[in-house]
Amino acid sequence: MQHITADQLPHMEQRYRSNLINCLSGFKNLSLLGSIDEKGQTNLAVFSQVFHIGADPALIGVLVRPQSVRRHSLANILQSGDFTLNNVREHMLLRAHQTSARWEESEFSACGFTPWFSPQIKAPYVTESTLRIGLRLAEALPLTINNTVLVIGSVQEIWVPEYCLQPDGFIDLETAGSLSCSGLDSYHYTLSLGRLSYAKTDRVPEFLNQEQL
Amino acid sequence: MQHITADQLPHMEQRYRSNLINCLSGFKNLSLLGSIDEKGQTNLAVFSQVFHIGADPALIGVLVRPQSVRRHSLANILQSGDFTLNNVREHMLLRAHQTSARWEESEFSACGFTPWFSPQIKAPYVTESTLRIGLRLAEALPLTINNTVLVIGSVQEIWVPEYCLQPDGFIDLETAGSLSCSGLDSYHYTLSLGRLSYAKTDRVPEFLNQEQL
Repeated sequence: MQHITADQLPHMEQRYRSNLINCLSGFKNLSLLGSIDEKGQTNLAVFSQVFHIGADPALIGVLVRPQSVRRHSLANILQSGDFTLNNVREHMLLRAHQTSARWEESEFSACGFTPWFSPQIKAPYVTESTLRIGLRLAEALPLTINNTVLVIGSVQEIWVPEYCLQPDGFIDLETAGSLSCSGLDSYHYTLSLGRLSYAKTDRVPEFLNQEQL
Repeated sequence: MQHITADQLPHMEQRYRSNLINCLSGFKNLSLLGSIDEKGQTNLAVFSQVFHIGADPALIGVLVRPQSVRRHSLANILQSGDFTLNNVREHMLLRAHQTSARWEESEFSACGFTPWFSPQIKAPYVTESTLRIGLRLAEALPLTINNTVLVIGSVQEIWVPEYCLQPDGFIDLETAGSLSCSGLDSYHYTLSLGRLSYAKTDRVPEFLNQEQL
């Protein structure tokens, strides 16, 4: 095993350290965040720092670095109050990655995505995505420890194909075509191992079959 | 497309809503969090809410629900200041899932994992894991919006096999055998699509080959 200690980190080349530390948090969600400014210019940015905050109330968190190119997303969310999260499928990957370049125009037109608006949410959805979530800003919490902002959105609506939704509410992300990512630039398919039964001390967990869902 | 709106959520059966909302954040990291109490009893809990906070300083966040069975992890972290994150490989999956049952004894012995201690960190590592991260509590931030706690740990040390570490600091999680998860109970392998070149407005991103890493 290689042993890397905290006192080595400051001496590493910046890109090396960034790759290393960004990999520690494992496989991540890959989303396109849609937003809009007060003049009506749309913005789209690929995000890997999107996470579940709670189911009741239904809350999703996004960690934003105000110094990055993604600052437009933050400014738009704070201004309009709305944003969308859209899954990334394989045929969208190069274009999704490309949204992280420094575009002057909207990433929708620059990268070839089609905006779509629902009556409930001001921000644009990505027509090419099969899982689309509309959120309203609930809280923007500054993390003073490293000057990032934890944006917490309240789920307003969900658009999901019927064939991805299982009888117990589970969304089959593989059927939806969602990809995963790791580090700063690595992308992954997934292959389901299955769903496990609720953990109890008196029995070994089992993979559920269709009848048990 | 199925359209689910916020006003439908309170009327859903609790388990249905929990499955649905927990799936929205996509594919997630799967980790075992090791901790220890002041009497020396070890604790191990499977976590999917682990995320990158920043690379410089190197910070990782874990979202903990104080009402859940994982409250022991939180109490231990607040008490000792240390915790570990350990990856979950395929042969560990059933036992990792089983740590979420309500055990009286240590989950290490109850679920069949072997604790290992480094000189730097009070909390136990999982010997069976190939990627092990030692963290020290930097901040415990209460999210008043839903009574969860965002535990932010400062990376103290990393244990990773040489063969998983690429020349530019990237950790190949697939070679490390790490799994991903989605929802509350679904587990996944991953298959790499590759790493993409840095996004620039004047060129299409390309998958990197070994020489470019």
